[in-house]
Amino acid sequence: DRPLLVIAGPCQLESVDHAQMIAGRMAEDCAATGAQFVFKGSYDKANRTSLGGKRGLGMDEGLKVLQSVKQAIGCPVLTDIHAPDHCATVAEVCDVMQIPAFLCRQTDLLLAAGETGAVINVKKGQFLAPWDMPNVVAKIESTGNKRILLTERGASFGYNTLVADMRSLPTMARTGYPVVMDATHSVQQPGGQGGSSGGQREFAPVMARAAVSLGIAAVFIETHEDPDNAPSDGPNMIPLDRMGALVKSLIAFDALAKADPLRV
Amino acid sequence: DRPLLVIAGPCQLESVDHAQMIAGRMAEDCAATGAQFVFKGSYDKANRTSLGGKRGLGMDEGLKVLQSVKQAIGCPVLTDIHAPDHCATVAEVCDVMQIPAFLCRQTDLLLAAGETGAVINVKKGQFLAPWDMPNVVAKIESTGNKRILLTERGASFGYNTLVADMRSLPTMARTGYPVVMDATHSVQQPGGQGGSSGGQREFAPVMARAAVSLGIAAVFIETHEDPDNAPSDGPNMIPLDRMGALVKSLIAFDALAKADPLRV
Amino acid sequence: DRPLLVIAGPCQLESVDHAQMIAGRMAEDCAATGAQFVFKGSYDKANRTSLGGKRGLGMDEGLKVLQSVKQAIGCPVLTDIHAPDHCATVAEVCDVMQIPAFLCRQTDLLLAAGETGAVINVKKGQFLAPWDMPNVVAKIESTGNKRILLTERGASFGYNTLVADMRSLPTMARTGYPVVMDATHSVQQPGGQGGSSGGQREFAPVMARAAVSLGIAAVFIETHEDPDNAPSDGPNMIPLDRMGALVKSLIAFDALAKADPLRV
Amino acid sequence: DRPLLVIAGPCQLESVDHAQMIAGRMAEDCAATGAQFVFKGSYDKANRTSLGGKRGLGMDEGLKVLQSVKQAIGCPVLTDIHAPDHCATVAEVCDVMQIPAFLCRQTDLLLAAGETGAVINVKKGQFLAPWDMPNVVAKIESTGNKRILLTERGASFGYNTLVADMRSLPTMARTGYPVVMDATHSVQQPGGQGGSSGGQREFAPVMARAAVSLGIAAVFIETHEDPDNAPSDGPNMIPLDRMGALVKSLIAFDALAKADPLRV
Repeated sequence: DRPLLVIAGPCQLESVDHAQMIAGRMAEDCAATGAQFVFKGSYDKANRTSLGGKRGLGMDEGLKVLQSVKQAIGCPVLTDIHAPDHCATVAEVCDVMQIPAFLCRQTDLLLAAGETGAVINVKKGQFLAPWDMPNVVAKIESTGNKRILLTERGASFGYNTLVADMRSLPTMARTGYPVVMDATHSVQQPGGQGGSSGGQREFAPVMARAAVSLGIAAVFIETHEDPDNAPSDGPNMIPLDRMGALVKSLIAFDALAKADPLRV
Repeated sequence: DRPLLVIAGPCQLESVDHAQMIAGRMAEDCAATGAQFVFKGSYDKANRTSLGGKRGLGMDEGLKVLQSVKQAIGCPVLTDIHAPDHCATVAEVCDVMQIPAFLCRQTDLLLAAGETGAVINVKKGQFLAPWDMPNVVAKIESTGNKRILLTERGASFGYNTLVADMRSLPTMARTGYPVVMDATHSVQQPGGQGGSSGGQREFAPVMARAAVSLGIAAVFIETHEDPDNAPSDGPNMIPLDRMGALVKSLIAFDALAKADPLRV
Repeated sequence: DRPLLVIAGPCQLESVDHAQMIAGRMAEDCAATGAQFVFKGSYDKANRTSLGGKRGLGMDEGLKVLQSVKQAIGCPVLTDIHAPDHCATVAEVCDVMQIPAFLCRQTDLLLAAGETGAVINVKKGQFLAPWDMPNVVAKIESTGNKRILLTERGASFGYNTLVADMRSLPTMARTGYPVVMDATHSVQQPGGQGGSSGGQREFAPVMARAAVSLGIAAVFIETHEDPDNAPSDGPNMIPLDRMGALVKSLIAFDALAKADPLRV
Repeated sequence: DRPLLVIAGPCQLESVDHAQMIAGRMAEDCAATGAQFVFKGSYDKANRTSLGGKRGLGMDEGLKVLQSVKQAIGCPVLTDIHAPDHCATVAEVCDVMQIPAFLCRQTDLLLAAGETGAVINVKKGQFLAPWDMPNVVAKIESTGNKRILLTERGASFGYNTLVADMRSLPTMARTGYPVVMDATHSVQQPGGQGGSSGGQREFAPVMARAAVSLGIAAVFIETHEDPDNAPSDGPNMIPLDRMGALVKSLIAFDALAKADPLRV
């Protein structure tokens, strides 16, 4: 029942200055409203739609950027991992390690991540029912790690389209673990632009608000000062200068929701 | 921006006493919180899963019940219609005529309903995209009737399952007409019990709250004093004695949402 | 185990001459290969995407056209019906009455159709699981009519898209009734052109062949001598001059399939 | 236009004797009908539904089994890979390396596999549209490897269900690469048994025949002498003693399809 956690940052880490700029701005926006904040940034986009899509800074450079954000801004940091042998190194810097949706059933990755003792945020696969997440949870718990977050990021709905099922949030909450709404990727249109994914940025606040009103623990939102020129996920990122108002709005719904919990 | 409208009542009309009991209770619950209220009841379930399902009182008897509710309780009443030649008669009693989802593209029914001048509530078909509703709206508008409501009641999602896409609410709102969330039928499991439809009653308040937080005009909820013994839709109706708390909760989210409108 | 039945004709009836031209051509094409033939034509498109779409000749004129086809060509004729009170009149002319997919659960229509004693072809709704069709069948059988055909025409798959599940054919065949593949409408893109439905004509032969290879009773294909200028369903109709080759190809797969029945 | 390739074997490799027994039997069945044959077996099930599911022999032991099959039976062998650093070692033994569906967009795995020069069989993700496969193909082609197979194994269709869209086969064939139908996994019910996946074995021959009738290059079928006691995928594997009749039936449809190619 703590106030809403906002997990936010650019899709890709671009540089120390860029990351600190976004993290600093988001930390202020969150502090101003009482929201908790974790900075998110990827060092490697390992499953771009096409080969021409930018991959990112790489692990070594990316971890330096994340370390600098922790020191300069003082916030926890999150990144996503794609290979078991990256987990130990990444956990030296990152507070939260995220399992990408496509990889949410890869046993070795879940175990390697769990064994670091870091908080593990698993994105539910686009192909997975919410009631199948306890099997994923059990893989991580088998390492003795019970610091787990579960994220809804949309389910496949025909071709090139996702739909976010609001029932999935209370269903996953039955595991006892905190539930996160990924408002950015649930409005993605996978592959919808031929060589890259499209998105419906205008609906990200819709998803965020609907989910927060249900009393979830956290919302995940990607943001950029210039989304249309960002190296990835531009079509569904929210402009940084609108994040303050969005967080302020969400925290009001969060307070109301947590004062009046749904019993499902 | 008026306060939330609650469209509520039993799935089927059962008797004058039963309808007045539910309408009276709901009218009190709504008045207590400032919500608007319209009583809903069906006189004919024209598309039951199986032949053995109860059809209802029939038009003549049903309209008498609805008339008695209007007089005794003083609230507007809504019923669903299935044939063009019923529209004129039904409109003599009903304030709102509802087009069932399966029938939302039947041109003759839309025209006959529109021509009565009554408010027309169209349920979006389980097979229809929200951006295709303007074609439905134009059919009704062609009669000169611009008193239209548009309802989300779930989209087909594989077999025996529906999913409610929250993006559908602001998408339909772009028509300029008030949008309704049917919290009861969007958690239906069509045909999910073999000879009848199943449902997930526990998720109806989830759907209602998520949708109301987006600033919609109305919520549609079926209720019964004993859902498990109701003649239809029992698995997804909400017990009448919980409706007061639910409406009270929803009206708080409604106030917050309407003070902070989403711009989509 | 009789040879494949081909149900074919234009989407809309246009005139006596036009209907006889298509029926004559199709009857020859079918006779040349040993296929059975039923002529199909609609007198009313009662659920066009938008109001501007042409509705058709109307019942009186349409039945005259169908009667003329029966007499001139000597083939059975099929049309679709949308209202219970049309059934008796239509059955005076038509050998097969078709229940549209959107209406496949409308009890009164199923009963009125069944009571005529005509063959009833029910299209499975885009929202219905194949294992729910026995409930539909039971409604018709309750009239004493056991002359029933069951048609697959695609299931909703996200927005503006259908998918034809091949499992649906043997699943529906478990009822004991003949199963039909509608190769035209299963490649429809409902509402996919804004004010009308799109389609993928090039995939209709794919659907037809895959289904026929499973040993089904019949295939339903709409055809027109100039699909791009047809009053409806142009994007998914097959040009008339290609039907001969298509039927010839299908009848070869039909023979192989019926000599080697699948046991499901 | 060569005769149908049958990719078949148990889900998991169990032992040298077991693999040789199945490969020998399948090689005979295929030779008897003129079908081509590749033996399939997995050494590691890296994404089991739950942690309790058996993982398999491991890479070292598994490759010994596959090597023994090549030598004893004289057929090519296929296995699936899950990590880039396994590719070079696996390619020393395997003729075909398979990219699992969940991993079909993992760039590093596609590149590492491609660089071995082995034939790469990519399973289209349950979350991917068939027209997005050219992006996957381009990743492999960037290594200079143009020995690629593309496999349909079903698309997500609501929860715990897949649907195989027959249009996907000619759509993927537009890449110019051979197309494979995975008749086993397209009838899987992912997670459908709680801690493991269910399946509908009875529909695998339905999928295989429908797809083969379209003129595809290959069919993928898992088989076991005792499916109900197999360590994985039991619910959708076909009993080994039925494979001879199935291959014989498929090869007849294959011959007819390749003599009468569909033009899509």
